[in-house]
Amino acid sequence: MNSVKAAIIGGAGLSGLELLHLLSRHPGVEIGLVTSTRYAGRRVADAFPELKGLSHTFAGNDAPADGCEVAFLAIPNRASLERAPRLLERGLKVIDLSGVFRIPDTAVFKEFYRLEHTAPEALKEAVFGLPEAYREAIRKARLVANPGCYPTGALLGLLPFGDDLTRLSAPPIVEAKTGVSGAGGRTEDDSARFMEVHDNFKAYKIFTHQHLPEIQHHLEQCTPYRAATQGAVVFTPYLLPVARGILTSIVLRFRKAPDPAAVRLRYAEFAAREPFFTLLPEGESPDLKMVRHRNECVVSLHHDASAETWIVLTAIDNLVKGAAGQAVQNLNLMYGWDETAGLV
Amino acid sequence: MNSVKAAIIGGAGLSGLELLHLLSRHPGVEIGLVTSTRYAGRRVADAFPELKGLSHTFAGNDAPADGCEVAFLAIPNRASLERAPRLLERGLKVIDLSGVFRIPDTAVFKEFYRLEHTAPEALKEAVFGLPEAYREAIRKARLVANPGCYPTGALLGLLPFGDDLTRLSAPPIVEAKTGVSGAGGRTEDDSARFMEVHDNFKAYKIFTHQHLPEIQHHLEQCTPYRAATQGAVVFTPYLLPVARGILTSIVLRFRKAPDPAAVRLRYAEFAAREPFFTLLPEGESPDLKMVRHRNECVVSLHHDASAETWIVLTAIDNLVKGAAGQAVQNLNLMYGWDETAGLV
Amino acid sequence: MNSVKAAIIGGAGLSGLELLHLLSRHPGVEIGLVTSTRYAGRRVADAFPELKGLSHTFAGNDAPADGCEVAFLAIPNRASLERAPRLLERGLKVIDLSGVFRIPDTAVFKEFYRLEHTAPEALKEAVFGLPEAYREAIRKARLVANPGCYPTGALLGLLPFGDDLTRLSAPPIVEAKTGVSGAGGRTEDDSARFMEVHDNFKAYKIFTHQHLPEIQHHLEQCTPYRAATQGAVVFTPYLLPVARGILTSIVLRFRKAPDPAAVRLRYAEFAAREPFFTLLPEGESPDLKMVRHRNECVVSLHHDASAETWIVLTAIDNLVKGAAGQAVQNLNLMYGWDETAGLV
Amino acid sequence: MNSVKAAIIGGAGLSGLELLHLLSRHPGVEIGLVTSTRYAGRRVADAFPELKGLSHTFAGNDAPADGCEVAFLAIPNRASLERAPRLLERGLKVIDLSGVFRIPDTAVFKEFYRLEHTAPEALKEAVFGLPEAYREAIRKARLVANPGCYPTGALLGLLPFGDDLTRLSAPPIVEAKTGVSGAGGRTEDDSARFMEVHDNFKAYKIFTHQHLPEIQHHLEQCTPYRAATQGAVVFTPYLLPVARGILTSIVLRFRKAPDPAAVRLRYAEFAAREPFFTLLPEGESPDLKMVRHRNECVVSLHHDASAETWIVLTAIDNLVKGAAGQAVQNLNLMYGWDETAGLV
Repeated sequence: MNSVKAAIIGGAGLSGLELLHLLSRHPGVEIGLVTSTRYAGRRVADAFPELKGLSHTFAGNDAPADGCEVAFLAIPNRASLERAPRLLERGLKVIDLSGVFRIPDTAVFKEFYRLEHTAPEALKEAVFGLPEAYREAIRKARLVANPGCYPTGALLGLLPFGDDLTRLSAPPIVEAKTGVSGAGGRTEDDSARFMEVHDNFKAYKIFTHQHLPEIQHHLEQCTPYRAATQGAVVFTPYLLPVARGILTSIVLRFRKAPDPAAVRLRYAEFAAREPFFTLLPEGESPDLKMVRHRNECVVSLHHDASAETWIVLTAIDNLVKGAAGQAVQNLNLMYGWDETAGLV
Repeated sequence: MNSVKAAIIGGAGLSGLELLHLLSRHPGVEIGLVTSTRYAGRRVADAFPELKGLSHTFAGNDAPADGCEVAFLAIPNRASLERAPRLLERGLKVIDLSGVFRIPDTAVFKEFYRLEHTAPEALKEAVFGLPEAYREAIRKARLVANPGCYPTGALLGLLPFGDDLTRLSAPPIVEAKTGVSGAGGRTEDDSARFMEVHDNFKAYKIFTHQHLPEIQHHLEQCTPYRAATQGAVVFTPYLLPVARGILTSIVLRFRKAPDPAAVRLRYAEFAAREPFFTLLPEGESPDLKMVRHRNECVVSLHHDASAETWIVLTAIDNLVKGAAGQAVQNLNLMYGWDETAGLV
Repeated sequence: MNSVKAAIIGGAGLSGLELLHLLSRHPGVEIGLVTSTRYAGRRVADAFPELKGLSHTFAGNDAPADGCEVAFLAIPNRASLERAPRLLERGLKVIDLSGVFRIPDTAVFKEFYRLEHTAPEALKEAVFGLPEAYREAIRKARLVANPGCYPTGALLGLLPFGDDLTRLSAPPIVEAKTGVSGAGGRTEDDSARFMEVHDNFKAYKIFTHQHLPEIQHHLEQCTPYRAATQGAVVFTPYLLPVARGILTSIVLRFRKAPDPAAVRLRYAEFAAREPFFTLLPEGESPDLKMVRHRNECVVSLHHDASAETWIVLTAIDNLVKGAAGQAVQNLNLMYGWDETAGLV
Repeated sequence: MNSVKAAIIGGAGLSGLELLHLLSRHPGVEIGLVTSTRYAGRRVADAFPELKGLSHTFAGNDAPADGCEVAFLAIPNRASLERAPRLLERGLKVIDLSGVFRIPDTAVFKEFYRLEHTAPEALKEAVFGLPEAYREAIRKARLVANPGCYPTGALLGLLPFGDDLTRLSAPPIVEAKTGVSGAGGRTEDDSARFMEVHDNFKAYKIFTHQHLPEIQHHLEQCTPYRAATQGAVVFTPYLLPVARGILTSIVLRFRKAPDPAAVRLRYAEFAAREPFFTLLPEGESPDLKMVRHRNECVVSLHHDASAETWIVLTAIDNLVKGAAGQAVQNLNLMYGWDETAGLV
C-alpha cells in the first residue's frame, strides 16, 4: 500500500477528531495537515490527551494543503462550498462531510439549507458516498459527498428491500433517534446543553429536516420507490440523551404482502456481500451499543402476521458509519485499497 | 371534603411510591394501609427518606384492608386478578393499576398476557379509567382499570381527532419511547440494568406488546377508527435512557386531508375542557421535562404541506398521568370531588 | 397569614424558576413581579409549560418592583451589587441569591470573585441566610445573603460537630460533587455542554473556588475551628453528569478521638430540632435521590475503628436547600411564619 | 513475535469481553479458548454483535485449556482460588483478574473478602501486576495478580511522589469515583439498577472496601509511607452514573512542604519513562473521557499556596488500565514483547 498524504480540514470538531483517530491508524495514510480555527497552533496531543500518540500541530483552517493528495472537509456548509472547488482545482481529491454536495437540485438545496449554492460545477461531478449504493462511481470520483448520518441509517435499511418497494401503499415512515453528536453536538444552541438534553427526549425539525430531500432523492435513485406516486417520505428526527449513535425505524405498508422469506434472504445476501452491514437473527433488534465506535450498520426485520406491515430497524454510529468511518471507506475505494483498511 | 380511608396494596414499587407521595398530600384521603412484601414491618420514612413526613409502616401485601373504603392495587397482574374480586366482595371500591381489567376480550388477554383470566365477573364491571374518554362511567364505577402508560399517551393524542379518523388511508403508526420506569423499572431482567440502558436505545416487543390490544380496543370504542377496515394499529415501544416519561408519536395518513384549522380547533377545545391536557402552539413540540412529576398530557400537532400526513406528539409522565396521578384523578371522580384535588 | 407581595428578579434562570414554583404554592405569598431579560413580554406558562398554572408575564429585569414588600434576586453577581442597595433604599426586604453579600471581607471577595465590591453598606447589614446557624439574625434582617449551594452542604455537615472541632489535627477536607445546575447550568461555557458532561466526571477550580472563603468564614463564625491554627479548609468541587443535587464528603482527622456516641447524639438532637435536617441510621449513607426537589439536608456519620478519622456525608438539592428553598425558608423567618410554610 | 495460545476463562463478563476485544487484535496472541457459563455453546459474534469479526464459540467455564500456554481468569474470587492452582500445575502461566492473589496476608484477606484463602501456595508466588511498580518481577512471574481498578488509580497517583511521602503529617485521603462497571456492573444487586444509579450519586463501603488493604500494602511496598506511623489510608469509593472510568483524588498533608518544581519533575520523568502514564500541564485536570477505552493513566498535580497540601488526581478506564488492558500489559512483559503490543 503506497502511503497517501491526507489533509483534514476541520480536525477538532467531532467528525474531525474521529477522522484523526481513524486516519492515524490507517496503513495507507499519512496525515499531512490538520486544521482548526479554535486550536490553531496547539499540539493535537495537548488539546486532546486521548490522541496522545499524535505529533501533529493544528494549523489554521485556511492553511494550504501543500503536498497533500486528498482532503477531508469537516467544516460548516458555507465553508465547504468555498473550499472544495479550490482544492479540486489544485488537483486534490476531496471527501466532503458537509451537506452541500449531496443533492443535485439546487432549488431544493436552497429551500432546506437556506443557502445559495455557489459551487454548481463541483456539485455536478460530486458522487454520493454511500458505498453500498454507489461503489463503482465512488472509485472514480474526484469529489465524494459523504452522506448525512440520517440518510445513511435510512437508506441502508431500505436498499435491500429493492423491487418490493414498488408495492408500497404508503410512503416510508422514517423515525430516527440520534445522540447529541448527530444533532450538532458542539454548536452553540440549547439543543446541546446538558440541562436540556439529559434525562429528556424530544423531536425536532418535524417535516423540515435538511436530510429529508437527501433520503428522498437517493431512495428514488437506488430503488423503485417514487415520491410522485407513493407520497413523500415522512421523516422525523429525535434527540436522545446519549453521546452518539442513531437508531432508525422505517415502517412500510404494502398493498400486497412481500414474501417474508424472500425479503429476509435478500437482506442476508446483502449482508454477506457488504463488509459493514449485519442482519440480526429473527426476534432480535439492534441497539446503539452494538455499533458504537464501529463502521457498521446493524439491521433487523420485523413484520406483522399479514406481512403487509414491516418495520426495519437500523443502528449506526453517527460519527463512524454516519461520518468519519464512511469517509475512510470512501477513501479506500478511491485509492483501490481493501475497503475495510483502517476500519476493523 | 370528607376524609376517605384508602389502602395502597403494593406501596413500595414505583407506582406505589408515587401513590404514597400523592395521597399523603390529598385533602380528602387518609392512608389507612400501605403494604409491601419486601419492606413489611419497616417504617415508610426509614425505607424511603424522601417520604420523611409519613408515619406509616409497611404491612405485608396480604394484610386486610380493614376500615378502608377504597383500595389502590399496584401489584403484579396475577396478584390483582386474585385480590380485586375479594376487595370488591368486601364492599371496597378498587382502582387497579395492573393490566388485567383493561380489555374485555379474555382470549385476546390470554394471548398477550400469557395468563388465564380468572376474574371474569370483575372484568365485566370494570370501567377503563381514562377520564377524558369515560368520565361519567368512572364516576359510578366500583372497579376502575387504570390505563396503561402507553395507551394513555396514544389515546389522548388521538381522541380529539375524532370524526376525521374515518378518512384514514392507513392505520395509525404509534411509536412510544419510554423511560425505564415505564418498562418495568424494578423488575429483574436486563432491561433495567444500568450497563444495558445507559447511553443506549432500543425497541422491544415489536408487534407484540401487551398494550397494543388496549390501545386498539379503546380507540375503537371512542373514535370511528376501525381496525377491521383500516388495519391494526402499528405499535412499537422503545426504551430510553431516562428515568421517567413517555414521548409518543402518532403518524396518520388520510385519504382526504382534514382541515388543519378545524383539527387544531378541536384539540384546543379539548384542552380548554380537560384539566390535564395542554395543546402546544404551532411550531413547538413536547419533551419529557414539560410533564415530569405532573399529571399532565402535553400535545403538539404537525402536518405536511398537503395535510394528508399528520404527526401527533404527546408527552406524559408514565408514573403520574400514566399511572398514579391518573389513579388519583379517577378517585376524585369516584368520590365526586374536584377532579384536580391533590394533583396540582 | 397575611399575603405578602414578592418580586422575583431573574425568574427564568434555574433558581428563579424554582422560586416561581415554590412561591406560587406558598400560602403567604402573592407573586407581584417576575422578570427576565430573555423572556420579557412572554407569559410564564407559555415559555415554561411545566408552570402551566401561572398567569404571570415576565417583565424586563429592570422593571420596578412597585407594590412589592420583598424581592428575591436571582441574577448575576454584578447585577445584585447594583440592584440590592436600590431595593433596600426603597424599603423592600431583599433575599439575594448571588454571591456578593456572603463574606464580609471585601479584599477576599475581590480575590475570589475578581470583582470590586461596590455595595459595602449593604454588605455590612447583610445576614448570612443559613437558618440552622443564624436563625435569630435572619428574623430581623432586611438583607439576607442566601448561602451558596456548596457552603450549605459543607456547613450543615459540620455544625453539629461543634466543640470537638477544637481537636482537629488537620483542616477539614471537603469534596463536593454537584449536578450541572449547581455549577452554572445555563451559562455558555463548555462545562454545561452535554458532550462534555455526559458519561464524564471531573474536578474544577481546585483550591480556587469562590465558595471556599464562604465555607471558611462561616465555619469559623459558628464553630471553634480556626484556619489560622488548623489550616485552611481544603475544598474541591466536582461536576457530576446529573441535573441537580450535591453530595459532599467531609473528612476530619482528630488529635484525640471524639466519642462516637456523643457525636451521633449531637447530630440526632440537631436533626430533631431542625425541620430540614435528617440524620441517617448507622450504616446508611445519603444519595442525591433522597433530597431531590426537597428542602432538605440528609446526613450520615462514619468513623474508622479508632474514631480518629471521621467522614461526614451530606446531600442536598442545590436548587432547593442550596438556593430557592432556603430562600423561602429565610422568607418564612423574616415574616415570622412557620419556617416550613410552602416547603413541605 | 511468536504466536501464543491464550485462554480467557470468563469471557462474557465486562472484563472478559474487554480481554476478547484486546486479544483478538494482539499481534502475538491466538485465542485458544474462551469460556462462559451463561453463553456456553453460543458463537461469540452472535451473542455480542460488536465482536462480529470473531469466529470463536464460548465453551463452558470448566472446559480444559488444552494447548494454551497462558490463561486469563476473569471469574469470581472463589472460582479463581480453585482454578488458578490447577492451571499452574498443568504448566500454564496465569494472569488472574480476581482479587484473591493481591495481598499476601491471608488474615487480612479473610477479613475484607469474607472468604477463606484456599490457595496459599499460589499466593506465595503471585506477583502484583502493576508494571510501573513491579516490572522486573512480572517478567519472571508464573502467576500475576492483576491489580484492582481502585488500587491502580490510587497507586499510580502516589508512586512518583516517592521519598516526600516520609514527611506526610496525615495519611493519604483517597476518594475514588467509579462508573458502574467498576462497582460490579453485571451483578444482581441494586447498585447496578438503572433506576438506582441514573441521575444519582453515592458513596459505598465506607472504611470497609476490599481494595483498601491492597492500596495500603502495595503503597508500603513501593514508597516510604508507613501506616503504623502515619495512619491508615482513608479510602472512600463512590458510584457515578457513568458506564466506565474512575477518577481518583488523593489529598496529602505534609509536615514540611515538598518543593513543587521537584515533585512535578519527578512526575514528568515518570511519565516520560512509562508508556501508559500522562502528566497534564499545570492548571489542567483529568476527566474520564481522556482515558476511555485506552490503557492509560492521566494524572494532574495541584497544591495550595503553602505547598503543604497537595491534591493528586488520576483518571483510568477501570476496564482497561484497571483490568483487561493492564492484564495484556502484563502478558507483554511475561513474554518479553514490546510492553505496548496490542494496546495502542
